[in-house]
Amino acid sequence: MTQDPLVIFTPSGKRGRVPAGTPVLTAARQLGVDLDSVCGGRGICSKCQVAPSFGDFPKHGVTVAETALSPWNEVEARYDRVRGLKQGRRLGCQAQIRGDVVIDVPPESQVHRQVVRKAASAKPITMDPATRLLMVEVEEPDMHEPSGDFERLRAALKDQWGIEAVTAGLPVLRKLQPALRKGEWKVSVALYQPVHTEEFRILDIWSGLHEGGLFGLAIDLGSTTIAAHLTDLTDGRVLASAGVMNPQIRFGEDLMSRVSYAMMNPGGDVEMTRAVREAIDRLAVEIAAEGGVDPGLIVEVVFVMNPVMHHLLLGIDPVELGQAPFALATSSAMTLDARDLDLTSLNPQAQTYILPCIAGHVGADAAGVALAEEPDKSEDLVLVVDVGTNAEILLGNRERVLACSSPTGPAFEGAQISSGQRAAPGAIERVEIDPATKEPRFRVIGSDLWSDDPGFAEATKATGITGICGSGIIEAVAEMRMAGLLDPSGLIGSAEQTGTARCEPTGRTHAYLLHDGTAEGGPRITVTQGDIRAIQLAKSALYAGARLLMDQLGVDRVDRVVLAGAFGAHISPKHAMVLGMIPDAPLAKVTSAGNAAGHGARIALCNRAARARIEETVRRIHKVETAVEPRFQEHFVAANAIPHASDPFPDLASVVTLPDVHFGASGGGGEGRRRRRG
Amino acid sequence: MTQDPLVIFTPSGKRGRVPAGTPVLTAARQLGVDLDSVCGGRGICSKCQVAPSFGDFPKHGVTVAETALSPWNEVEARYDRVRGLKQGRRLGCQAQIRGDVVIDVPPESQVHRQVVRKAASAKPITMDPATRLLMVEVEEPDMHEPSGDFERLRAALKDQWGIEAVTAGLPVLRKLQPALRKGEWKVSVALYQPVHTEEFRILDIWSGLHEGGLFGLAIDLGSTTIAAHLTDLTDGRVLASAGVMNPQIRFGEDLMSRVSYAMMNPGGDVEMTRAVREAIDRLAVEIAAEGGVDPGLIVEVVFVMNPVMHHLLLGIDPVELGQAPFALATSSAMTLDARDLDLTSLNPQAQTYILPCIAGHVGADAAGVALAEEPDKSEDLVLVVDVGTNAEILLGNRERVLACSSPTGPAFEGAQISSGQRAAPGAIERVEIDPATKEPRFRVIGSDLWSDDPGFAEATKATGITGICGSGIIEAVAEMRMAGLLDPSGLIGSAEQTGTARCEPTGRTHAYLLHDGTAEGGPRITVTQGDIRAIQLAKSALYAGARLLMDQLGVDRVDRVVLAGAFGAHISPKHAMVLGMIPDAPLAKVTSAGNAAGHGARIALCNRAARARIEETVRRIHKVETAVEPRFQEHFVAANAIPHASDPFPDLASVVTLPDVHFGASGGGGEGRRRRRG
Repeated sequence: MTQDPLVIFTPSGKRGRVPAGTPVLTAARQLGVDLDSVCGGRGICSKCQVAPSFGDFPKHGVTVAETALSPWNEVEARYDRVRGLKQGRRLGCQAQIRGDVVIDVPPESQVHRQVVRKAASAKPITMDPATRLLMVEVEEPDMHEPSGDFERLRAALKDQWGIEAVTAGLPVLRKLQPALRKGEWKVSVALYQPVHTEEFRILDIWSGLHEGGLFGLAIDLGSTTIAAHLTDLTDGRVLASAGVMNPQIRFGEDLMSRVSYAMMNPGGDVEMTRAVREAIDRLAVEIAAEGGVDPGLIVEVVFVMNPVMHHLLLGIDPVELGQAPFALATSSAMTLDARDLDLTSLNPQAQTYILPCIAGHVGADAAGVALAEEPDKSEDLVLVVDVGTNAEILLGNRERVLACSSPTGPAFEGAQISSGQRAAPGAIERVEIDPATKEPRFRVIGSDLWSDDPGFAEATKATGITGICGSGIIEAVAEMRMAGLLDPSGLIGSAEQTGTARCEPTGRTHAYLLHDGTAEGGPRITVTQGDIRAIQLAKSALYAGARLLMDQLGVDRVDRVVLAGAFGAHISPKHAMVLGMIPDAPLAKVTSAGNAAGHGARIALCNRAARARIEETVRRIHKVETAVEPRFQEHFVAANAIPHASDPFPDLASVVTLPDVHFGASGGGGEGRRRRRG
Repeated sequence: MTQDPLVIFTPSGKRGRVPAGTPVLTAARQLGVDLDSVCGGRGICSKCQVAPSFGDFPKHGVTVAETALSPWNEVEARYDRVRGLKQGRRLGCQAQIRGDVVIDVPPESQVHRQVVRKAASAKPITMDPATRLLMVEVEEPDMHEPSGDFERLRAALKDQWGIEAVTAGLPVLRKLQPALRKGEWKVSVALYQPVHTEEFRILDIWSGLHEGGLFGLAIDLGSTTIAAHLTDLTDGRVLASAGVMNPQIRFGEDLMSRVSYAMMNPGGDVEMTRAVREAIDRLAVEIAAEGGVDPGLIVEVVFVMNPVMHHLLLGIDPVELGQAPFALATSSAMTLDARDLDLTSLNPQAQTYILPCIAGHVGADAAGVALAEEPDKSEDLVLVVDVGTNAEILLGNRERVLACSSPTGPAFEGAQISSGQRAAPGAIERVEIDPATKEPRFRVIGSDLWSDDPGFAEATKATGITGICGSGIIEAVAEMRMAGLLDPSGLIGSAEQTGTARCEPTGRTHAYLLHDGTAEGGPRITVTQGDIRAIQLAKSALYAGARLLMDQLGVDRVDRVVLAGAFGAHISPKHAMVLGMIPDAPLAKVTSAGNAAGHGARIALCNRAARARIEETVRRIHKVETAVEPRFQEHFVAANAIPHASDPFPDLASVVTLPDVHFGASGGGGEGRRRRRG
């Protein structure tokens, strides 16, 4: 047999003939197979484990005269003794190909392995992080050919990994000489390649093989909450997730009050910047502790956030964002040293990537949603709504994507609601009202039981029933409408008109009693006329934004709707549509994406190419400014009814029938509109 | 006349025809003429002043029907009223070409003007700084086509100056929005382009036209002294020069004692780094005050220094430089943010450039010397010696350049000399001894009079006569040899042997009394046998280094010798050769270059291309390590005599005749060598 052995790699299917005696790792590299290695084939890191799956293989400890792979060698035997090698596995750098063979590369041995999300609808992330761990062996210095240690490290990276154009900052140069000598001229480096460059930067260095891992943070910096995910940069696993309140709340609940604070108080922006940076740094330390990770091993941070938070994090006065024409200081994606943001607890050379902003009202958070949901790759026309104090709205398909922001206000988050509260244990989150008896039942966060289930009182004893959160108030309003307690204009009927004593008079209007906890020392939870008005304003703004984009695109139907945002995950599509929050769509086509902005941050953290991709996508997204579009005001006014007159809602009609009740000559919506305009 | 007018620019001689009505600045740009402009032709900056020198010109206030240039316009008239325009000058952006014309671009209107050095031998520096001031007019934001202010600034730089790939750090982004609005969308930017890149970085931004200038520091960071030159980056003028003691002296006089300090004291290197960085920052503030410049307008700093200072400035433990194989952490040139070196008083975005090191003993200071003296461009074989505690030696021509460092010790700087002192007022710097009478005369720093001139006592009253500095001891030793007070082995004769009572016995040897100031309460200044030995050791090391390079190159003569270094400037070539410090060369071919290392720093500061050039030169310089060359020891031993036996010194013989005296059976040199080896 004079022909070279044939090797076939699975799952890639890549194949080729290599000279007998070629190590599997070498063959994989030659054939472009995605097989990991940190130590560069020195039998140290064990990242290149493979599973020969077809051929004639040597067994451990058994010598077979004629086999497709070389017998187990001492390196593999020692590794197996010390750490244990899974049944059927070989080290790719040690096993040599001797005959025709099929070799499987298990997912954990692939550099570009895929990370599957928990949410069923979600697409997997392909690992391709900007920072990788590599081990190299550096030549010792020679007095007769003097060269710097760093220059020889650079030469080693080129020779052993084909990597050129490498730089290093002072913190790394400071560690370099002791690390090289302690590691007997073998060192591991965390090698980072910023997006759009051919250059690499060494972020850290360790003697020998660094086994402590490399980590990143994906941060969704919201006006109210800062949420972070600690991610293993080698395999994409989320080791810990944590959220803290944005401490800027003390300067103003919503974004515009923070902009006002900056305008009214000289140095106010600096104060807010300091507060948020300190909170993020503290959060990083906490989440690292929770994940059992040294915060010094966090080498990358990716941020998504709205434009005002974007400027306040960067230390830019957000005053221009508070007035037309809402000019951003910069809209481009940014790569910064983490220490420029005072994130001093991370690795001293840690890098941050900030997703691009789309417009003055449509921030990097919307870019994160676009990266996660990819409306620009959708075959059908998709409406993506990220519900928050400002709703970011994306509409489009692979042809064209439009974006806008709509000022929904904080009602959807439970604020400005009489019994409203943030989504926390004890908050009513689901509501049903019997159309016949007009009696409610509900669920509170912290228990899976309904209020009329046996054991409910016991189950909610610890938390109590403290108020109603955003998803709860939406369901309550929609259920009130379906039960005939509310007319299309949003007016709550009296006890006489509705036939239930739960509709109580409060001044000149009525309120619906959802729960009376006074006997147990708890609150009376009602839905007041004012609550209905607040929700009407919010949903009208959301709907008007979506309609405006539909006008611009010249469509009056969308194929599907994605509700994003932590809050979006908890909204019932049916209730959202009864309320008229979103345009009509088949109910089965209204899905929830969870925290899509945060997921976009995770994608950008784990996949360097995604950074270039979202930057390009954002450039192509067409921005629509709601604040100056007369059509937005028209849609807003027309959308006040529940559901509103401007949309036929045929899909909704197939699911629910809304009672034809009318409790007054005029709706209170006019009042609300006037308030808003003022 | 249908042909377009012909325009000829002087001094470049560039010429071409342009359509009638073309502004002179536009014509200059089209023809590739070096005509400055900061405001981009808006008649604001006046940098584009030209002097029409041949043609038919309009006079100010006089209308001429047919002229080669358009009449004075309102912009020029206003400029002349407010600031005054020199006779015969026009603003290049305002004056339009109407007929054939010769236009002179005066030096101050050239971007790449040449800066002439004070030293007669020195080559001029061509201005081409890495940082330039440019003014742009930025488009106002448009809500319907939202884009960031920075993105529109970038577009303006591209449209108006053809500059692409521009980035800006947070301090600039912070100032951007107010600057644009205050300047009514016109801003000036300090645009920096690092060496080797196509990218630009905005270091600072100002509303409207910035008239405060841009400045740089060239710093020669010596073991003993830190010297800085404050330079105007637009025209290369040195506005102020200042020097301070290196505060690291308290950790060790010479470099090796500082390395020892770092080895013996944990954290000692950090302490020394902090000390030197603080001193530099303070020096920057002082020199800015002296130059009448806001330190915040200092945007660039260029450093030259020896390898130990290099590491200590960068915060790298220099321990490896204290032991073979003398490995540098990094030898490459470096571009760093000034704040990474804690230079916090400068512009927050100020950039530093550090010249490359040649080897573990041959630092960025030697690279500075190579940049200033350009041995690699020399037709004849040149020996460049930078004399200091370590002498850096370069030998070569355009074919090949060798470099080494030689441990001369501090004797040449007046240290370890019995009456030695640093070069300061009151120090004896020149010495002559009458060969007949053996009587000395001398000069001290601070006065031009010789000690036997009338009025000398009066002139030196303020300073006194306090000791002898490096150049003084060299002259004293050489003069003693020429006057027959010293034999070739370096032994001082007795009063009997020499015939002068100034040769006094001190223990088993003799000393020569140079000056007795005891009557006035001053010191007795003598040259002792120990002083002679110290100078012999130093000069032997220097000579051996030069000879080693000559061996490597296979030559036994050099065409010329350049003495560099602050000290080198004060050495008399004749005395240096009598002493045998340098190999024999025609006396007329031994010149002084002043502080060549510091001048190299100034060149790199003013000319970006010089940075790439010296990096390339350093790569091609062949390094020779004296510490491990047996030939170095041989040359060192053989070079002990004054002048030494291993060199015939024919050129010297034509200038001086050395008396054939012998005062003892053996020279004391053996003692010195033993001491050194121990």
